Formats: sequence, structure tokens, C-alpha cells
Amino acid sequence: MTDLTNLNKEQLIELYTKLEDEYQEIKESNLSLDMSRGKPSPEQLDLSLDLLSISDESLHVSEGIDIRNYGSLDGLDEAKKLFAEMLQVNPKEVIIGGNSSLNMMYDTVSRALLHGVIDSSIPWGKEPKIKFLCPSPGYDRHFAICELLNIEMITIDMLDDGPDMDKIEELVEKDESIKGIWCIPKYSNPDGTTYGDEVVTRLANMKTKATDFKIFWDDAYTVHHLTNEPSQLKNMLKACKEADNPNRVFIFASTSKITFPGSGVSAMAASEDNIAFIKKQLAIQTIGPDKINQVRHVRFLKNLENINHHMKKQAEIIKPKFDMVTSILQSQLGELNIASWSNPKGGYFISLNTLDGCATETVKLASEAGVTLTSAGATFPYGKDPRNRNIRIAPTFPSLTELKTAIEVLCVCIKMTSIKKLLNN
Amino acid sequence: MTDLTNLNKEQLIELYTKLEDEYQEIKESNLSLDMSRGKPSPEQLDLSLDLLSISDESLHVSEGIDIRNYGSLDGLDEAKKLFAEMLQVNPKEVIIGGNSSLNMMYDTVSRALLHGVIDSSIPWGKEPKIKFLCPSPGYDRHFAICELLNIEMITIDMLDDGPDMDKIEELVEKDESIKGIWCIPKYSNPDGTTYGDEVVTRLANMKTKATDFKIFWDDAYTVHHLTNEPSQLKNMLKACKEADNPNRVFIFASTSKITFPGSGVSAMAASEDNIAFIKKQLAIQTIGPDKINQVRHVRFLKNLENINHHMKKQAEIIKPKFDMVTSILQSQLGELNIASWSNPKGGYFISLNTLDGCATETVKLASEAGVTLTSAGATFPYGKDPRNRNIRIAPTFPSLTELKTAIEVLCVCIKMTSIKKLLNN
Repeated sequence: MTDLTNLNKEQLIELYTKLEDEYQEIKESNLSLDMSRGKPSPEQLDLSLDLLSISDESLHVSEGIDIRNYGSLDGLDEAKKLFAEMLQVNPKEVIIGGNSSLNMMYDTVSRALLHGVIDSSIPWGKEPKIKFLCPSPGYDRHFAICELLNIEMITIDMLDDGPDMDKIEELVEKDESIKGIWCIPKYSNPDGTTYGDEVVTRLANMKTKATDFKIFWDDAYTVHHLTNEPSQLKNMLKACKEADNPNRVFIFASTSKITFPGSGVSAMAASEDNIAFIKKQLAIQTIGPDKINQVRHVRFLKNLENINHHMKKQAEIIKPKFDMVTSILQSQLGELNIASWSNPKGGYFISLNTLDGCATETVKLASEAGVTLTSAGATFPYGKDPRNRNIRIAPTFPSLTELKTAIEVLCVCIKMTSIKKLLNN
Repeated sequence: MTDLTNLNKEQLIELYTKLEDEYQEIKESNLSLDMSRGKPSPEQLDLSLDLLSISDESLHVSEGIDIRNYGSLDGLDEAKKLFAEMLQVNPKEVIIGGNSSLNMMYDTVSRALLHGVIDSSIPWGKEPKIKFLCPSPGYDRHFAICELLNIEMITIDMLDDGPDMDKIEELVEKDESIKGIWCIPKYSNPDGTTYGDEVVTRLANMKTKATDFKIFWDDAYTVHHLTNEPSQLKNMLKACKEADNPNRVFIFASTSKITFPGSGVSAMAASEDNIAFIKKQLAIQTIGPDKINQVRHVRFLKNLENINHHMKKQAEIIKPKFDMVTSILQSQLGELNIASWSNPKGGYFISLNTLDGCATETVKLASEAGVTLTSAGATFPYGKDPRNRNIRIAPTFPSLTELKTAIEVLCVCIKMTSIKKLLNN
């Protein structure tokens, strides 16, 4: 194969006809493969089976309290300690949540709307308008929270070492209504980018017109390495303290993709002042998170060293899947000059860019052939990819065999839509 | 002993002096007893120990899905079925929540503020003012939600068969800003009252000026009987449907005081239209509740018949505590004409009324003698009991021995404050 952009019309039509036949055959094989969400595979879940059988008598007591009863609004000390080690903060800077860090994020934003954050003069919801910066491509569920809560989103380009800081600094310095930014700083969803030290420092230090600007630092993949050279992320809470903006950041994490998604433990970290401010509201909101599940997790995961060991076993299962995707993409599309993709060192996704304008049609073709991908555009605010080119590939859940088929189908679809686009140019 | 109100000043002073000595002795015994919250005792928690050891392979699959993975936003069908049976609704009318029904209530109110409810024209938070009716004495944490969220509370008297319906009907018919009412309809906290059929019917049928008025029906003690003649509560969702107000009610419940508080499963029930409306927002808020814990609970609790059997065992443990409290109160205060109290057939509390103006001082005296009670006033909006007389007794957690001491101390304190009041009249 060769660079498609060098082919003439006849050659493109000839190729397209062949691909159409191939596509027809695929359709007739009645595939049903789902690569839309970043879900661990059953083999990964099996790694945590021992979590379920922790049921001895000693489970009932932690730190002198009967964990079967009420109490412990912000989590057990031993759970805080575990997350503190993972996030490199002090246990006093941690609040343990329920089974969903997404829910902690939603809750943090909704509380900001109803009451404001620690340095707000009025609740965000009483402001005429508020806006969030959204480095993109990014996580669709962050953007969905903004959309639900009527927070205007401003798309910020993702560069090689994180979001476009020049643009961000320019915007936050002059616009008081910009109250927040969504960040997935390590192995970002979907690009796999880890923010560079300078980006972290600039985010912590930048001058914001809003006195109550907040960074929503979703450290979802903090221990989710795929290689033996883990990316190093500069400590954001420390950076904020050093910048004399200690209350600027809320850090979020969970065990969802460490143990069992949906039955894990989530946590947030922030300055002690932020924690105290939030706890006052939490005391009204809820009775505190499930302590039995916290103790199970602490007994199973033990400490950061053991978590890293556990995550290596996860990587052994999923790394071959990432490798298979990139190797098929390379062999099928490498020379064609119609697509580029990420080679992530961690996280859950491969980000693929088609020629401008081809993502929606590609995802549609794949879907009609039985391969479900994340909707085109989903990785951008309002579901609108301005260049309509980004496709998020979630390789972890399918088996290697299924994955091979799915990516081959995807390549056929990319070629077809690319040729159509080249023919129309 | 005799009716204190018939004693003269000298007799009262003499009695007070004796009580002071008794009180001093109690103080010197360095008690530390906590009766402030409705917590199950360790013996009650032991009844659910089998819940912890459900860990066989079959736990992983329910309804064809791997419950260890993501999925199931509003709960598993088998969990919905269990709560539907308990609340006498259709499983389609149920949403399963996390470990806290209080959190589901907070969430429902906060969503109403941010987005409105199904029949709102604007979010409640955009209204100039909104108000809730608060039958009182009631649950302090309901009132705390209103206070946090700036919802004005209107105190409604509790009568023998529920809240004062004449007053309620009069208010809701003319005041558009009244958007809701908090109800604990069965074995109410703290009075132990079960709403009469007519009260349920009138709540379902009454004309409300607000088109989006909602009943927050906290059915916390629905299976928490203390006698063999369970109170019957008329089905509120059915009553609302019959009244052509199907969307008027949100019903809440949890297993907190059935299995393990803090590690249980909560649920809400409402019309299918309400459920659909809420699910759209939930889909953005969270990834759905812990499925493993749901399956554990379904396997352990099985069905309503088995729950009733389980609750009988709970009653065997706590009924003697309720009986001891009422019998000490009767023997110590029965003839004195200075206090009255409830004899509940279910729930978690005994409600005691002192002479007007004596509750705060009584609770303070008890606290100084090492017996912590729920703060005086806590059972009323803004923590202000207009007659300063209601004291909530939570007899379930302490042992019988501790309870005996605690109530004897309480009786001394009530006598002292009553005499002081009578002397000042």
C-alpha cells in the first residue's frame, strides 16, 4: 500500500470497490463487538477475586470502631492512608467516597453551584454565567456534567505535554466567569498524555480573574502503567501550595480499574481547608461511605508497592491488546497518510485521528458492520469534534481475537471514508 | 411519689435537695453513655453476619451480566424486585441507590434545585423562595438538608394519626412557594406514629398551589416492627395514582437498620415517569450503585417473608430495651404529671415531652452526668422546639444495663428541671 493522497481518481475508485466487497463480507459475518467504553476484561477482574472472600471476624473492627455500624463520614483512616500514598498527599488531605469518583466530581461541582467553593463570594449557580475549560479530546462524562449543569464549555487543544497553556493563561486572566478546568493529567483519556512538569507548574501558578477558580484533577490512571517506565506526574497539590494557591485543586481517584468497577472505593484529595469546608456539607448530605468495602480494599491492596505489583499483572493482560491495536493500525494504515494514533504508556485508550471530517462516517460504518465504538465527537464538549476526526479506541475489554477482528474492520472503514473524502476534494 | 404540680414551695425545695445529692453521686460515677443516635446494637449486627461471607463464584453473575464490572445505573433487577416487594410497588418504579437513603433524599432535593422536578417550569433554585412543610417533632437530618439548601421550613404539628392535615391543606392551597413535605409515615421518628389512612388519602389528593409539589416519603421503618401486630400504612404511591397525582411522591427506604448501617443498600420508588426523569440525570451523575453489595443483600434477605422473619429477631433484641425505658419512665415519672412519652409499636425511638421549657436544661444536665442524648430541639426545624419540651430517646444501642442507668439518670434530670420550673412559676 502507498500514500492514498498520491493516488488519482481512478485508482481511488478501484480501491474503494475492493474495500466495499470486503466490507460486505464483514457485514455478512454478523459481528457484535463493543469497544465503546473503557472496561476491564473478565481476566483483569479475576485478579481481584480474593477481595470477595475477605470475610473473617477481624473485618468488623477498624481503628476501634465497629465498621458494620454508622459512623466515619469521610472514610476510615486506613483507607485515607492508602489513597494518600497513591496520590502522594497527607491522609488529612483525603476524603473517601462511595464507589464512583465520577459521582464525587459531579457532587463537587453541584455543591459549588449550590453553595460556592471555599473562596467564592456567592454560589456559582447565582453567577449570571460560568464556564469551564475543557482540554480536548477529553472524557465525555466530564463534559456531560457541565452540559447537565449549564456550565459553558471552552475547548482547549491538547498538545504533547498537556493542554495549551498559553491559551489557558490568556483566557483565565481576563474572564472572571471561568471557574474551572477538567484535567486527566496522567495517561489522559483518550490521548494517553501525561502532563509535563511545566504544565503542572503553570496551572498551579497562573493568575486567574476568578478568585475561586478550581482545577478538577481526575487522576483516574495514576497507577495504570503499561510499560516498565511509568510516567512521572508532578504533584499538583504540592505545586499549588508552593504557588500560594493551596485551595486551587481537587484531586480525584478510585480503585474502579484496579479492583472491580462499580464496587470500588473512590477518594478526593485537596488542601486541609478545602477538606474541612467540604466535610461540613457532606455531614448533611450523607452518612458516609461503605466502611466494610473500604476495609476489604485496604486488606486486599495493602499499600502502594502491592498496588504497583497488582497493576503489573493488569498490564500483562492488557498490554498485548494495546500492542495488537497499534500493530494492526501500523500494518494497515501506516503508509496511507490518512490516520495517526497514540502509543500510550498507560491508561485505557488509544486515540486515533482520521482525515478531517471522517470520524462520524467511520464510526457509523463500523457500527453497521457490528463494531461499536465510542460515538464520534464524544471526546469533545457538546459532542462536537471541530475537525470531526477523533476516534477513541478502548482495547481492554474484548478478547485478543475479537479485538483483532474489530480493528481490522475499523481499518476497512477508515480507508473507505478516507477515499470518499479524497474523491470529494 | 405524687403529682409534683400539687406540691408547695417547701416540699419542692426539699425534693430538689435530695435530687441534687443523687445527681452529684451519679456525676461521681463517671458515666459515659451515648443515646444520641438511632444505632443498632452489636447483637443486632451479628444477625447479618452471613452477609459478609457470601463470596462464592455465583456472586459474579446476575441477570447475565458480570456484576464485578461497570453497568446497571439504577440497580439490578433482583434488587429492585426485593425493594418493590417491601414497598408494595412495581419493580419498574424503583431506583436502587448507594449505601445511604439520606443521600438519595439530599440528591433528590439538590437535583430539584438545580433542574426542577418533572412538573417544574423552572428549577426550584431559580424561584425567589421555596418552602417545605416539616411535621414535627421529626428527623433532624431532613431539616438539616433544608437548612443547608436554603429551603424555608414550616413546622406542622404531629397529631395522633400523622401531621395536622387541616393546617397542611390550608397552607399548600394558597402558597405556591411550598414545594414539599418531609414525612416518616410509619413508626415516625421520634413519635412512633403511623399515618392513618385518611392522612395518606388527603396528602395524595390535596390541592396544591405549586404544580410541582412533592412528598418526600421516608419509609425508613417500614419493616421495623416491635410487636406482633404491625402497623398498616396505606400505599402512598397507589393513593397518588388514584388521586390522579401519580408524580407527587418520592418514597425512600434502605436496609441500614435491617443489615449493616453504612454498608447497606438504599432505594427510592416513584411513578415510572418520575423514575425516567431522574434516570436521565443519574446517568450523568454516577456509574450506578455497588452491584456486589446488592447481590449480597438479595441472597441474604431473599424476600419480604424472610425479611419479616429477620426483623422479628431484631425485635427480640430491642423490644426489651423499649420496654425497660417505658417501664422506668412509668415507675419514676408516671404519677408526677411532669412528662409524657410514646409507647411505639415500631421504629427506633421513644419520644418524651417534659413540661414546657424544660428540654434543653434536662439534656444539658444529663450530658454533664455522662449521658448523651440527642440535642434538645433537634427534632424541630432550625433546632428550635417552640415549646422546648421534646427529648428523643434512642434505646437500641446501649446494653440493657447501660440503658437502665441512662434512663434513671434522665429521670433525675427531668425531675430537677421540672421542679426548678415549678418553683419559678
